[in-house]
Amino acid sequence: MFELELSGPSEGNPFTDVELHAEFSDGQRPVRVGGFYDGDGIWRVRFMPDAEGAWTFATASNSPDLHGRTGRFTCGPAAAGSHGPVRVADRFHFAHADGTRYLPFGTTAYAWTHQVERLREATRRILAESGFNKVRMCLLPKSYQYNDNEPELFPFPGSVEDGWDTTRFDPAFFRRFEEEVLALRESGIEADVILCHPYDRWGFADLGAAADDRLVRYTVRRLAAFANVWWATANEYDLLGSKTEADWERLAAIVAEEDPFGHLRSIHNCGPFYDHSKPWITHVSAQRQDVYRTAEYTDQWRERWGKPVVVDECGYEGDIDWGWGNLTGEELLRRCWEGAVRGGYVQHGETYVNDAEELWWSKGGGLLGSSPERIAFLRAVVERSPTGVLDPLESDWDAPRGGVAGEYELIYFGFNRPRFRMIDLPEGGSFDVDVIDTWNMTVDRVAEDATGEIRVDLPARQYMAVRLTRASR
Amino acid sequence: MFELELSGPSEGNPFTDVELHAEFSDGQRPVRVGGFYDGDGIWRVRFMPDAEGAWTFATASNSPDLHGRTGRFTCGPAAAGSHGPVRVADRFHFAHADGTRYLPFGTTAYAWTHQVERLREATRRILAESGFNKVRMCLLPKSYQYNDNEPELFPFPGSVEDGWDTTRFDPAFFRRFEEEVLALRESGIEADVILCHPYDRWGFADLGAAADDRLVRYTVRRLAAFANVWWATANEYDLLGSKTEADWERLAAIVAEEDPFGHLRSIHNCGPFYDHSKPWITHVSAQRQDVYRTAEYTDQWRERWGKPVVVDECGYEGDIDWGWGNLTGEELLRRCWEGAVRGGYVQHGETYVNDAEELWWSKGGGLLGSSPERIAFLRAVVERSPTGVLDPLESDWDAPRGGVAGEYELIYFGFNRPRFRMIDLPEGGSFDVDVIDTWNMTVDRVAEDATGEIRVDLPARQYMAVRLTRASR
Repeated sequence: MFELELSGPSEGNPFTDVELHAEFSDGQRPVRVGGFYDGDGIWRVRFMPDAEGAWTFATASNSPDLHGRTGRFTCGPAAAGSHGPVRVADRFHFAHADGTRYLPFGTTAYAWTHQVERLREATRRILAESGFNKVRMCLLPKSYQYNDNEPELFPFPGSVEDGWDTTRFDPAFFRRFEEEVLALRESGIEADVILCHPYDRWGFADLGAAADDRLVRYTVRRLAAFANVWWATANEYDLLGSKTEADWERLAAIVAEEDPFGHLRSIHNCGPFYDHSKPWITHVSAQRQDVYRTAEYTDQWRERWGKPVVVDECGYEGDIDWGWGNLTGEELLRRCWEGAVRGGYVQHGETYVNDAEELWWSKGGGLLGSSPERIAFLRAVVERSPTGVLDPLESDWDAPRGGVAGEYELIYFGFNRPRFRMIDLPEGGSFDVDVIDTWNMTVDRVAEDATGEIRVDLPARQYMAVRLTRASR
Repeated sequence: MFELELSGPSEGNPFTDVELHAEFSDGQRPVRVGGFYDGDGIWRVRFMPDAEGAWTFATASNSPDLHGRTGRFTCGPAAAGSHGPVRVADRFHFAHADGTRYLPFGTTAYAWTHQVERLREATRRILAESGFNKVRMCLLPKSYQYNDNEPELFPFPGSVEDGWDTTRFDPAFFRRFEEEVLALRESGIEADVILCHPYDRWGFADLGAAADDRLVRYTVRRLAAFANVWWATANEYDLLGSKTEADWERLAAIVAEEDPFGHLRSIHNCGPFYDHSKPWITHVSAQRQDVYRTAEYTDQWRERWGKPVVVDECGYEGDIDWGWGNLTGEELLRRCWEGAVRGGYVQHGETYVNDAEELWWSKGGGLLGSSPERIAFLRAVVERSPTGVLDPLESDWDAPRGGVAGEYELIYFGFNRPRFRMIDLPEGGSFDVDVIDTWNMTVDRVAEDATGEIRVDLPARQYMAVRLTRASR
């Protein structure tokens, strides 16, 4: 990220009175980027170059102090481990800008950036160590069961009692959020930033169109140059009763306008899906459809929308009273596998009740569940695919099959538990056959260089998979 | 059952050449009943009186030997424990003819009557002791995986090699079957007799219309006077590719014509349902709809067809290779509870592989599973309902509720496992509250005489239910 810092006007209301843009160019492509006021007379324009070499820039503003500033810089090679923002790749999957495959194995901690430093530090550390590579997190503070504490910072000056001045922002609020996004980037974790959500007691869920627009524009200008940002226009958009589809489309257009770097964009449902055929939506961010089935629809949703399917909420491992938040680790892991072999990405979440009301799902702080290490094991199995991903394959009715046809195929048995299975190996080669216990995280080679129909003995336990890996042609 | 035995013609082909009927009357209602040839010059007419008192009868036949025979008998009170045939009651439920509530808690042993005596004896004994009160069983022998043994008896004279004479029957075959139906009756178990099925290597699944008609007519005349008979026109009717809806309707009409006693009638699907709105169908006999959901549709199917819903196959507890036959006991029990609180009846089945290939599902012989005793526990919970049945009640989205509104309500949590639940008790009275562990079969009283909203603590385990029983008004 290149950041241009300028001194400029601070009188009046700089947030609304002054407009600042910069045009960056590598000599071939101009890129127009919006700047923002960061308080104390400081103005910034953040830029994420997408090519090495010399770049120039020139500013334009209705403030003479900020107008016509020019400069140049050289973009060097990417730092080790830095692969650039994540894009859609191969229609149903993802890759970083440098082509490195990215498999979303994420979790959710909605309000972790709004907690005290003790919790934030623990969350950062756990995320860095956990094997998760994405976290869904709300820009705005959250009010909900188990979320009664007041945040230290608010996006606007003011208070609930005296009212918020939504024409201004508190830069400290955004700096805090940015620090956390940056910390995630350092750990290789994507920040799926939720711009709007319904869990509110401060009025932020119903600011009106003008204030919504200002907030989204300001936020995107601040954050878009962070490589690891994704935009989730809303969480449970359908619970934000005061907003219509026209509002969502207008906000999405602002995101597109203010993000010249093309980060991923989604909108997450509670009940009915948003129309994911809208061109601005890069991938499906799905929520559980009913008590029993969700991940099982992954392949149908791929067909329906022709986009990657990320099941961002299929229920949480935990024990709270809400029906979406008291799955066993086994059931959550089962859903992750179901989605994986159907060519999608089911994400983790955890909601164990504790006396401090510090549930990972919202405040971060600590993971207690049994699924994370097993989800990491799933990730390792997917990563061994020769294409780096799994796509749905023709399946028996009772056991979805996914992978790369004739090369790397996974058959997943879920809660069923056969004692054996007759498997017709793909034609045109020989296969090594593994029995994978997805819960106990073991892989047993049961046949090598096999062809034709084979009998694969299984332990009559739940959560088993069979893997076929091409051995020869 | 009153049985009229007559000596009559045995020359030619008595099965097709001679017609025999008898009209029974209690002086108010004539009942016309078909007779049948039982071999060796013996003819029988079986009658199930539905009222105590004096009955007369007179025969009619195209054989002078069998024509114009008359007689009388007195029907005494029902024997202890004998409640008469099962009928539909309260639209979605069942009761015996004497009004005694009947809750179907059945199992399946398709081909048990076609096995050797050792297996049949074991099956009879286990059924008598198991707590099941219905068994689905095929009239005809079964050919399928784990069903390779030849039966001792066949319905027709002949052989596969030499062909079957489908214009004649082997009375010994039917007597064997009747003996087993009678043994079930003595144990208080309903015999859900499957007239047609597709699991065949003898040609019985494709006899042609004329032979089908003769077989069904003969079978119904023999069996209809047994109080515990139900008619399942077919199992997996849609796998009998040579039969059309017109065939099923014609066979159903023969059943109705030849059964003056009005036994229950159904037709069971593999994939798509038969049109259960047909008037002759007394109840829905449903099969699993997909890997994940079936029992969960019970309340919808009640709405759709306005008839009792019996999920005769929602998968089997077992460990065979077929996806329908390797459920855990937990999952089968979960399905039974799901169906129960939604106002229906999910039936048991078991398919554990063993070296003898004697799987309960088909041959009977022995139960190995963990679900039967727990299904019996469910039955006891349902039987405590003040109406004797459960009907679906307004439910939270994540936990179906069923019972008798404001009197006896069960909330079932399935694979979810909350640590507690806030429950608004029904208005207008006070309630005793029990936490039921449906797997461990325990009932813990957690509140007595409670009103208003209460917090019910739960053990954060799967397969729990909460029961509300009215304590006072």
